[in-house]
Formats: sequence, C-alpha cells, structure tokens
Amino acid sequence: MKYSEVIKLLEDLVNTPTHVLVGYGKGDLLVLRSDEGGFSSLWVLDVKSLSKKKIAKRPVSLEAEMPVKTNRVVYAVDVARGREQHVVYVVDLDRVEEEVQVDMEPVRVMSLVDTGERAFFTGATSEDVAIYMVEDGKAEKLYKLPRGFAFVTSANEHMVTGYGVLAGNPFSMEVFVYNVQSSEFKVYTPKPGSVNKEPVITEKNKLVFASSAFTEERDILVELDLEEEEFRELRLPGNDYYEYLPVEHVHYNQYEGKWLIVGKRNGRTKIFMNGYEIAPISGVAHRAVYVNDKIYYSYSSLRKPSEVVELDVKHRTSRVILESRPPREVESVLGDVKFEKVRTPSNLDIPVWIIESSKAGRPGPTVIYVHGGPWAEVADAWRVTLIALVATGFNVVAPNFRGSTGYGEWFKKMNIGDPGGGDLEDVVAVTKWALETGLASKVLIAGYSYGGYMTLWAMSNEPELYDCGVAGASVVDWEEMYGLSDAVFKAFIDVLFAGKRELLRERSPINKAPNITRPLCIIHPQNDSRTPLKPALRLLSLLLERGKSFEAHIVPDLGHAINTVEDAMKILLPMVSFLRKCAEVERG
Amino acid sequence: MKYSEVIKLLEDLVNTPTHVLVGYGKGDLLVLRSDEGGFSSLWVLDVKSLSKKKIAKRPVSLEAEMPVKTNRVVYAVDVARGREQHVVYVVDLDRVEEEVQVDMEPVRVMSLVDTGERAFFTGATSEDVAIYMVEDGKAEKLYKLPRGFAFVTSANEHMVTGYGVLAGNPFSMEVFVYNVQSSEFKVYTPKPGSVNKEPVITEKNKLVFASSAFTEERDILVELDLEEEEFRELRLPGNDYYEYLPVEHVHYNQYEGKWLIVGKRNGRTKIFMNGYEIAPISGVAHRAVYVNDKIYYSYSSLRKPSEVVELDVKHRTSRVILESRPPREVESVLGDVKFEKVRTPSNLDIPVWIIESSKAGRPGPTVIYVHGGPWAEVADAWRVTLIALVATGFNVVAPNFRGSTGYGEWFKKMNIGDPGGGDLEDVVAVTKWALETGLASKVLIAGYSYGGYMTLWAMSNEPELYDCGVAGASVVDWEEMYGLSDAVFKAFIDVLFAGKRELLRERSPINKAPNITRPLCIIHPQNDSRTPLKPALRLLSLLLERGKSFEAHIVPDLGHAINTVEDAMKILLPMVSFLRKCAEVERG
Repeated sequence: MKYSEVIKLLEDLVNTPTHVLVGYGKGDLLVLRSDEGGFSSLWVLDVKSLSKKKIAKRPVSLEAEMPVKTNRVVYAVDVARGREQHVVYVVDLDRVEEEVQVDMEPVRVMSLVDTGERAFFTGATSEDVAIYMVEDGKAEKLYKLPRGFAFVTSANEHMVTGYGVLAGNPFSMEVFVYNVQSSEFKVYTPKPGSVNKEPVITEKNKLVFASSAFTEERDILVELDLEEEEFRELRLPGNDYYEYLPVEHVHYNQYEGKWLIVGKRNGRTKIFMNGYEIAPISGVAHRAVYVNDKIYYSYSSLRKPSEVVELDVKHRTSRVILESRPPREVESVLGDVKFEKVRTPSNLDIPVWIIESSKAGRPGPTVIYVHGGPWAEVADAWRVTLIALVATGFNVVAPNFRGSTGYGEWFKKMNIGDPGGGDLEDVVAVTKWALETGLASKVLIAGYSYGGYMTLWAMSNEPELYDCGVAGASVVDWEEMYGLSDAVFKAFIDVLFAGKRELLRERSPINKAPNITRPLCIIHPQNDSRTPLKPALRLLSLLLERGKSFEAHIVPDLGHAINTVEDAMKILLPMVSFLRKCAEVERG
Repeated sequence: MKYSEVIKLLEDLVNTPTHVLVGYGKGDLLVLRSDEGGFSSLWVLDVKSLSKKKIAKRPVSLEAEMPVKTNRVVYAVDVARGREQHVVYVVDLDRVEEEVQVDMEPVRVMSLVDTGERAFFTGATSEDVAIYMVEDGKAEKLYKLPRGFAFVTSANEHMVTGYGVLAGNPFSMEVFVYNVQSSEFKVYTPKPGSVNKEPVITEKNKLVFASSAFTEERDILVELDLEEEEFRELRLPGNDYYEYLPVEHVHYNQYEGKWLIVGKRNGRTKIFMNGYEIAPISGVAHRAVYVNDKIYYSYSSLRKPSEVVELDVKHRTSRVILESRPPREVESVLGDVKFEKVRTPSNLDIPVWIIESSKAGRPGPTVIYVHGGPWAEVADAWRVTLIALVATGFNVVAPNFRGSTGYGEWFKKMNIGDPGGGDLEDVVAVTKWALETGLASKVLIAGYSYGGYMTLWAMSNEPELYDCGVAGASVVDWEEMYGLSDAVFKAFIDVLFAGKRELLRERSPINKAPNITRPLCIIHPQNDSRTPLKPALRLLSLLLERGKSFEAHIVPDLGHAINTVEDAMKILLPMVSFLRKCAEVERG
C-alpha cells in the first residue's frame, strides 16, 4: 500500500459523514448533528421530502436536545481556536439562515438544555462552574454550583435539573434541582454514596434519573416526586425492558405519556417504548423520539457510520431515511468484529472489542487502542480512528479497562482514586492476551486524551511490551495539568484521583518517561485546554535529552475536541504513518 | 487538488532519482551518487552495458572523489541516527557486495579524499577538528587542525591538502599542506586576507586552487609551486574559459595533463578542457572526468533532475547514458524559469530565480524560498523542495541574498559579521518586488537550515509582510546553538559572526519571536546536530505562551541532512500542506 493510497483511504474515511439525531422540530424537520461537508454542524432533514440543509455555519461543540416540535435549536460554538471558550447560538427552524449569537462572555459550556423558550447551560471559568440562563438573546449567570463537576440535563419553565459530584464524595453523584423563581438549589439522592445521573423532568413535573442506589451492577431508572421527596423505581408496562436488564441508559424521555428508552449492555443497545422492545438494532442507538405515531432514531455500529430510521408504530413498518456507509475499500478490509471478556491477573473480566483487518492477517500487527475518558467506552459504535487503523492494516483490540462506562458503577468506580493503577494492569493483560491468542504478531499502542495518557504510561511502565506507541492529546503531567485547568477540570481531576494529591505526581508519565525504550509519536493540539500542550513540550525536551526516538506533531488552532474533517486528518495521518512504519520494522 | 493527489504528486517527485558523477573506476565503471531506490547511495554504472548496481547498503553522507580507474570508493555513513557521527567505509569495485567498515571511533566527517590506497578526512568532535588517515582498514588521527573551519580536498602518497579559515581572519581562507612523512603542516596564501579554496594536487605535485587574491569579483585558478613557494595564475591554452570569466569553479582537475574545469556564473555552468568549451550545458554540471578519450559528466537543472553524458572527444559525438526526468504531472506545471537581478534599497543587485507555476497563476500565491548555508545558492540546478512547491501550486521566488555563493567573494563575504542584517534586507526587498511586479497575490516564506533561520527572522522583523512561514531545521537561538555545537560548528559560527559574540543574542529569532503575528509551521529533525532541536522546543513553548498560531512536526531519527526519500516526504508533506492551507485563507 503506497503512502498516497493510505492517505486517499483516510481521506475517504474521514469524509464519510455520520448523523446523530438531535430532535424533531416544528414543520416536520428532523434535526441532526452531522459532519457532512467538512465540519460538525447541525442539519435539518425534512421527513416528507428527505431534503436536507445545513444550519450552523461554524463547527458546533455541543447542542441542546430539543423538545418535540419546538421551532429552534440551541448550540454552543467555540470562539477561541479550540480553547473551548464557547458562546451559545440560537437558530429558528423557519429562518435557518439567521443564526443568532447570544450576548455573553465566552465560557466553557459543558452541558446545555433548552425548553424552547429558555436555555440553560453550565459554564466553567477559572473561578467557578455556574448555571447560566439564556433568555431574550442574553445569558445570565444564575447560580454558582457548589462543586465543579456537575451538568444540566433537563429544564422546564420552572426549574432546571442536573447531576454531579455534589456531596463531596468522589464515588457518588447526586441530582440537583434549581428553581428559577425562588433561586433555591436542592440536592437529592436516593441513597448516600450512590451514583445518580441525567435526570429528566417528566410530563408530571417529576424527575426520572439513572441510579446505582439499588445495585451497582446496573443502573435502574428512579422516579423522584419532588413534592413528596419520594423515590421509587420507574415502572413500565412492557416486560422486554426488564428482561433485557440494561446496564446503562443512553437516552430516556417521555413523549405523550410514553417512555422511550435506549438501554445498553455489552456495548450494544435496544430501544423500548413503555418497556416493549420496538426494533432490533445492531449497534448503538444515540437517541429516539416519538412523534406523530412514529419513532425516529439514529444509530451506528463499528461497521456502519450511521443510519437514521423512521419507524411507524401503528403499521409496524420502518424505513431508513438517511444512511451512511463506509467507503467500499474500507468495508472490504473490515474482518470479524468480536466482543470478548478477557480475564486479568486480578480476576477481572475485561470487555474487549476486537476487529480483525484482512490486511493485517492473523497473527498480524495489532494496535491496542485505548479509549479516552476514562469514563467512556469502546462499544459497537462507529469510531473513525479505530476503523482507520483497521483499514490501513492493523488488527485492533480495544479494551474497556476498569473505569470504563457500560458495565456497571462497580466497574466504573474502580479507577477512581487509582488512575494508571488497575486500569494499566487491565490494558497490559489484554495486550498479552492479544499476543498469546494468536491475533497479534506485534503490539502497538495508541490512544487520545486519557488513551494518550495510558499510551505514555504503558510505554513507561512496560517498556518492552509495545513496539511503539502514539499518544494523542495525552496527559503528560497531572500536577501541571491541574494547575492549568479551569474549575470544571480541576474538579474532574479531584474526582478521578479521589482527592489523593500525592498520586498526581506518582502517576504522571513525565516522571517515568525516562524508562521508555521504543519509538514514540506525540500528536497534540496546540490550544488544548483539557490536556494542555505545555507539559507535552516538556516531555519532548526530556525525550530529546535522553536520546529517545520520538516524533511529534503539534496541530495548529485546534483544541481537545476534533470538529472538522481537516483536523481529523491532521491527527489520523501522522498516527497511521508512524504505526505503519513501526509495523514494518523488524524488532531488533 | 485533493490532499491525496498532492501527496501522490510529492511521492512521485521525491521518488524521481538524481544521479551525480563521483568518478570513473577500474573495469569501465562509472560511480554515481544516487537516491534511486529510496536513499542516497553509491551506484556503479557499466559504461559498456549501461547496467547499474547499488553499492552502499546504508545512506551515504559523503563520498570521496575517485582517482581515475581506481578500484575502490570511500565514503562516510552516519551511525548515530542523524547526529552525523560517521564511520568510513571502503568498497572494492570488483567486490561491491562487501563493504568494509574502517576501524574508528565515530566522528563528524566533513571532508574526505582518497588516493586509491590511503584516504584522509577531517573529523570533528566536541574538542577539535583533525586530519585523519585511513590505511589498512584503520583510521589514525594525524593532525589537530589549528582552527576548526577547514576541509581536505586532495591527497597523494606524500601529502594531503585542503583549505579553511586558518589565519584567524573570518574574511579570509588559506590553503594548507600536511606532509604525511614529516608531519609538517604549512599554510599558504597568495595574499593575506584573500579567500583561497579547494586546492587539488597536480600531476607535477603543484597545487591549484581558486583564489580571490587578484579580484573579489571572481575566483581565479592559481598554481602554487610548493618547492619555490611561488604563486601564478593557471594558464590554459584555450581562450573560451577566459572569455566566459567564471565567477566560481564547481570542479577542476588534471587528467593526462589536461585540465578539465567546470566554471559557473549566474547560476549556470560550462565545461572546459584546457580552456576550450566542450559542450553546452543548460544547468549546473557537478563534475567531469576525462578518460579513454572520453569526457563523462553529470548535470541537472531546475527542470531536470539529472543527466549523465558521455562525450567522445575524438569523434565529437555525445550520448546520454543515464537520464532522470520529473514526473509528467510535474513537468506540465513548471512554467517559466527566469533569472533576474533585483535592485535593493542599498543598491545591491540580488540575483533571483523565479519559477512560475501554471497552478498558481499570475498573480498567484508565491513562496519566497530562502536557501540554506548561508554560503550556498539557488542555481539552475534540481532542487526537489523548490519543485515540490511549484508542482503543488506556488510560484517560487528564490533570492540569492548577500552571503550567497556564485557571485564573487565580495558578495559572499557581505554577510560575515552581519547574518540576519543585510541579508534580511535583501530577502525583504525581493519579497516586495514579487508583490509589486504582479507575480505574487500573497507571499509565503519557507526555508531549511539558514533558510529556516531567515524564515523565523523575517517573520519576526516584518510581521505583516508574509501570510505565513515554514521554518525547517531552523536556527532559533545562535547562543544556545553555539553551546551545543562541536568544534567545527563553533568555528562556523565564529566565522559567520566574525567573532562578534554580542550579535549572537541580537540576531536570534527566540528573542524577537513575540513579534510574530502570522501562522508559523516549525519542522525540525529530532537529532539535528547542526541546528539543534532544543532551542526550537523553547520557541514552541514561547509561541504557546503568547497564544500564537503555530504547528510543529518533529521528525524522528533524522538529523540535519536528509538522505532518504521517506524523510524527504516527512519534511515536504507538512510544509506543502501548511502552505496550501495558508494560501487558501483570505487575509483578514
């Protein structure tokens, strides 16, 4: 495969659009988030004519879920060349040419909700994280949150609700309600120490949220009567949902009294209406909306960038209204997609996704792909980096190490207070398994964000295991990163390390990097305000002094989030080139 | 032009081989230096069958010129991943499979000559620069040179000769002779303060060298009788040579009593035998050899990567025995190649090469390409970087600013004691001329080594002039570079600055970079031991702190010299991508 062919393939791949359902607006317009045409924007798709149109003229960082049949979309745009200083925009669906910028100072917007008349968001500065309200084209700071790691998830005319680490216990999360009239802020938990997430306001002004209060094996949807302050399990008429036993909930909301729920387990989802499964999905659905006796949903899988489906509930028919397929030359390379659980030395079963590449062969060069977060996961959902690796000649093994989402709160919280400890053990165990099981001829490691951290960390702690590694937007020095962080990311680090400040130094790659023996590729956005470039530059100096073999690529005017096709290429291309070179080289 | 098409084009271009004549060996084998097949190696070409074969298995940094019909080639190979720590290899032409490595500690080999039995080289360490002799497979340190900026150029069984800044005057160069038997080291000059270069030993044991002793307008070949210690102008029977008035001499040597001379003026060359012009050449010849009534030479031009020619002196016929053409899609883009002299505000006429690109148009985006050295030049000779820019959509303007070679010692010495002073003025004047003359719609600046320095320096001193710039392997901080340099590069900096140490700080980009306003791309080899990466990393930190828009690419396991096609791509690709992006962007 010539270099220009590799690039052509990557180019075709990053230009393959994805579509994520945002909501159903007035005038029978589905609103979608899509990177079609070069950057992550919002689009409207007329469900009658299937014609579509781009709304946002700039890359969109974040958009609010839309109440059904509202006439507007609210979204946040970075105005600081990737530094995640956002301003909020509002666009009416009947005048999509006219985006209106909200009058506000830029802040980091981490969550955003809209009632159709008012929008609310959390904004982080170096000083605090607060709830802001958008009304009449202006943003107003409503309430400074008591702790920074918190997010809004739902609102109506009276209140805004959300959740976060509010009790000061890094292992628990609580829901909150802020009353817009009385300015009262109240925190709720069904059980101290439990994790409670993503409350939505029901049609009867109750809260429904996902909770680990009953079991840490899986989330259970809990209903909170705010007047009586009583918690009870949400009851649904259908039994399919209870038989499926979802571990997590990707989405849940009430439409005309009916609950539409996207439940997830083992990296795949099912959609339920009032507890009845509505359609098989091979992959992960993003969101579902019920309107006009139809359900609209979008999903993707490791093999499929996206599909938007309209399901007629009455007539039990469905049609694909928008589809995106991988380039043909990519489809032909994608081999088996497997899900396995790999037993580690500490007797944990680590869920792993394995994608074989027909170009790599078995055994063949294999990339251990470490996801970011760390509270995230690789699931059976489209992930362009992973597919790019498979398409360019690598088997990919993606471990959902402890701390990953999707497998219960007990599993997720195992890395709190221990990042780079047990999770490293899991990554290493899965790596050795890939070699022993006959899949990998040599192992390479790559990741972005926390995955970049883990790449540096694994190469520092297991210097002989990997032939090389690519650390994208990596955490190099937790201490320096803490100092450079704003209120929300300081809070994030405090939670992740469970306040153990001494661990920040101990678990920082900069202090162990002298151990690295194999070639390393550092790719870092210039303006990253989550995992800042500054410590990465210090790492480069250290690698230079120690005579290590390394390359580095600093991507200009880019932050942590990759919102354009062009920037995706600037990350993928050096990564793939480096790994291909490494895979060619005989191990000395 | 899609990204993958740009890359395909660059790939085809860097894979276009070039061939440079090294010598004529035993068995009718021409020895060539060529990057055919991926890296800069030595090849033998049978002049009868025209079959050819690669000799060196590793990238060759430097090879010795061969006495006619010797049976061996001597060359230096870097063994320190680009740090220019060389060992010398010897290969016999009748056993080209068996390279023999000379027993020696690696040193930086900057010049290398061979008598066929013994080889001599200058080796630099952090302590000194010395003459070494290679005999019986071993290298021996013969003589520590009194000053570091000196090179060997010719040898016979009794002596080795060379030249350098030996009198302690940065504006002059002297020739030396080291007597191998007596260990006597003698320095010669026809006139104190003159520049005397590249002595060769004649068949009658005299020295012939190029000298500015008579005029600084052009070099004159001077013969030195070592016994009588008398200097006189070399007299040739033919008059063509004297009518041409070469400003510089690319090559001169005596073959069977006849002088073969490659003379150069205004960036093109002519070849003379005993003063008679032997053939027209449109470009720059590298070297010429007279043997068996035939002259062999190689040359290149801005339009042609290379051609090796056999000229039958008796029958006055010639044939091309090896040719390399640019890829067809490149040939079709190369527009007019022009040579002009541009008058600067200080009334200097700066020689400039201009290549128009049919893809750029007129006016179109134009790259001011600054050559390295600074004692070097852009001539009508193949230069892949320059052609890559033209092929991918830029007009290129390459100024031979004061300090460039090719236009007389008076011009070359104008930047000694003033780097970044008058030469900057010239580059800026030529830039403004490119805009005023209707060639450039916008101007971008790019260069490597001293050209990288000038890029940073020009963007710091004229922050509004260029839309963006690419600084490759640039000098960022002369002071820090001095501290990191070995003996030969310390000597180089001392000469360039004429010993004015206070200028090192004043003329360093790191101290003016806060002025930069336009996007900057830094490309730097990891293991560069001439222009080290360390200060470049400090520059990145500074740019980050000041919120500048920049990207950076650090190329692994590469030094200052680019000896492989793969490494050429790693420099060219980010350079071209960055400039193309910059050319697209409307100036705000």
